[in-house]
Amino acid sequence: MSTSTAFDPQAYRNALGTFTTGVTIITTRSKDGSPVGITANSFNSVSLSPPLVLWSLAKTSYSLESFTNNQHWNVHILSAEQEALSSRFASRGEDKFAGIELDDGINNTPLLPSCTARLQCRTAFCYDGGDHLIFIGEVLAYDRSDLPPLVFQSGQYALAARKPREGVRLTNEPTQDSAYTEDLLGYLAGRAHYQLLYKVTQAMGPSALDELSFFLLSLLSIRERATLEELNSFLLHTGMRATEPLMEGLENKGLVAIEPGETCAIYALTGQGRESALHQIALAKAVDQEISDRIGPGDAMALKLLLKRVIACSDPGLPDLWSTGSPSSR
Amino acid sequence: MSTSTAFDPQAYRNALGTFTTGVTIITTRSKDGSPVGITANSFNSVSLSPPLVLWSLAKTSYSLESFTNNQHWNVHILSAEQEALSSRFASRGEDKFAGIELDDGINNTPLLPSCTARLQCRTAFCYDGGDHLIFIGEVLAYDRSDLPPLVFQSGQYALAARKPREGVRLTNEPTQDSAYTEDLLGYLAGRAHYQLLYKVTQAMGPSALDELSFFLLSLLSIRERATLEELNSFLLHTGMRATEPLMEGLENKGLVAIEPGETCAIYALTGQGRESALHQIALAKAVDQEISDRIGPGDAMALKLLLKRVIACSDPGLPDLWSTGSPSSR
Repeated sequence: MSTSTAFDPQAYRNALGTFTTGVTIITTRSKDGSPVGITANSFNSVSLSPPLVLWSLAKTSYSLESFTNNQHWNVHILSAEQEALSSRFASRGEDKFAGIELDDGINNTPLLPSCTARLQCRTAFCYDGGDHLIFIGEVLAYDRSDLPPLVFQSGQYALAARKPREGVRLTNEPTQDSAYTEDLLGYLAGRAHYQLLYKVTQAMGPSALDELSFFLLSLLSIRERATLEELNSFLLHTGMRATEPLMEGLENKGLVAIEPGETCAIYALTGQGRESALHQIALAKAVDQEISDRIGPGDAMALKLLLKRVIACSDPGLPDLWSTGSPSSR
Repeated sequence: MSTSTAFDPQAYRNALGTFTTGVTIITTRSKDGSPVGITANSFNSVSLSPPLVLWSLAKTSYSLESFTNNQHWNVHILSAEQEALSSRFASRGEDKFAGIELDDGINNTPLLPSCTARLQCRTAFCYDGGDHLIFIGEVLAYDRSDLPPLVFQSGQYALAARKPREGVRLTNEPTQDSAYTEDLLGYLAGRAHYQLLYKVTQAMGPSALDELSFFLLSLLSIRERATLEELNSFLLHTGMRATEPLMEGLENKGLVAIEPGETCAIYALTGQGRESALHQIALAKAVDQEISDRIGPGDAMALKLLLKRVIACSDPGLPDLWSTGSPSSR
């Protein structure tokens, strides 16, 4: 960390960019009544009594005249699903409001739907801020949904992974540096995997299958028909292998039908097997929902996103499970 | 989402709180030269040319006089590791700076170490903002580290989980609503687990063990000595069971020593077994580091935090792996 007094704009922006913000769209109407809107992350709260918020706008902005002419503007705190809307309002498009059905506000100022929170404001002060104008608005009305908010950090969209007030530690014991610790990603991913699977199999009760059979039923519910070789191509990374005796065991349980293929057997779910797979999926979705409710929907979104990134960057070259067109799958 | 024009302070604060921010500590010196500092998340950038930033301070704050008297103040954008510091400076403590070795800045204004970024400022304007004063500062110097920043959202500390510019999708195919999808947490945790384990076992080469043996060696490296029953208590949720023949197999490989106990055999690692376990751990740590480098250290922290939360809320009542004092472990 070396102090810089030189203002290379990019380096300075990078330092400032480490300050995390939400993302807002701020709307008003121009003199001719057409809707105007821009994406801004310079928003912040100022005062509680009176309720005041602020944001700043570049003096060179095309929208400056509209915001200085019109005292009324709405701040939309965007939800995690509104990344595309954020990008649309950040560019200088002609028709930013195309296709958007506006909600009714306390006046005619454009009010965008499906946000995390919205503040309907009237300019209280407008201050000079170098190359920007600082708008201070009195909040006249507000509303809020339960949608997880969109986050912006270091030039990238993000989601917040909340840290609970009580730290999450799985153990009370300090561990040696050289030892296996609970902070290893591999340990955490494995334990989370097995605990989630355990919840599903517990819910299945006596009809619960072992993990490999569980996987094979899931695979066949997606791939429909597959040879042993194909099934195993999806299991490469698990260390588990499907074998003919195992498939025959599933046939004996009435879950899998074995068809003679030209060179080797082809496996497919029976009606009962499909029913069993759907039951598995329904239980897995229920566990997913329970965990999402417990950690919060925004945190669940963040977790899934991060797991996908880990999977993408540790993929040993597995075939695409959901791709169609494999000769034996149709 | 229903609009409210009533200003119940808590409801209004909750709506505003959905706007995510970083966390800063802002410092100055009082008239008598003693250091003053407060936690603020009202910081934001204003202008690039000249470089201006802003933040606001309650008019009732004990620190108000110091900040209106002294034109010089430093903004510290806190790192994810500085949550405790944030809490310390958010309360009205006598000795907030106790034990902190200050860095050298461009002047005598307190400069805290180990932050994500720091901005050394001089007041340019001070504006009225209802029950707050808005300080606009010219940035005279700045610096930045690679430490992931602390995030604040809805009254909780958080970490940012960045969304890459290109969406992360593991498949190009839309999936049916009723089907097994890649968006199930169970699927993602399982795939991440197996891919990470696969990387470790690939790195082990011919000496790679099967997953259960891998687990048993890890368990014995932590528990030192354990009976079959104890080992299996840690494996309950995996569906895997250690058996006497399996332990004998590990004995034959020279990895495990079997001691006759009073009622049943006690297992411990041999010197070679310990070496093998340490090798496993070193490889698991290397994979951990590789993934952390690829997704970014802040995202890796967020992922581990979220996995711990999932583990904590889906724990089927496993014994604490790291706790000491079990009769047979000493």
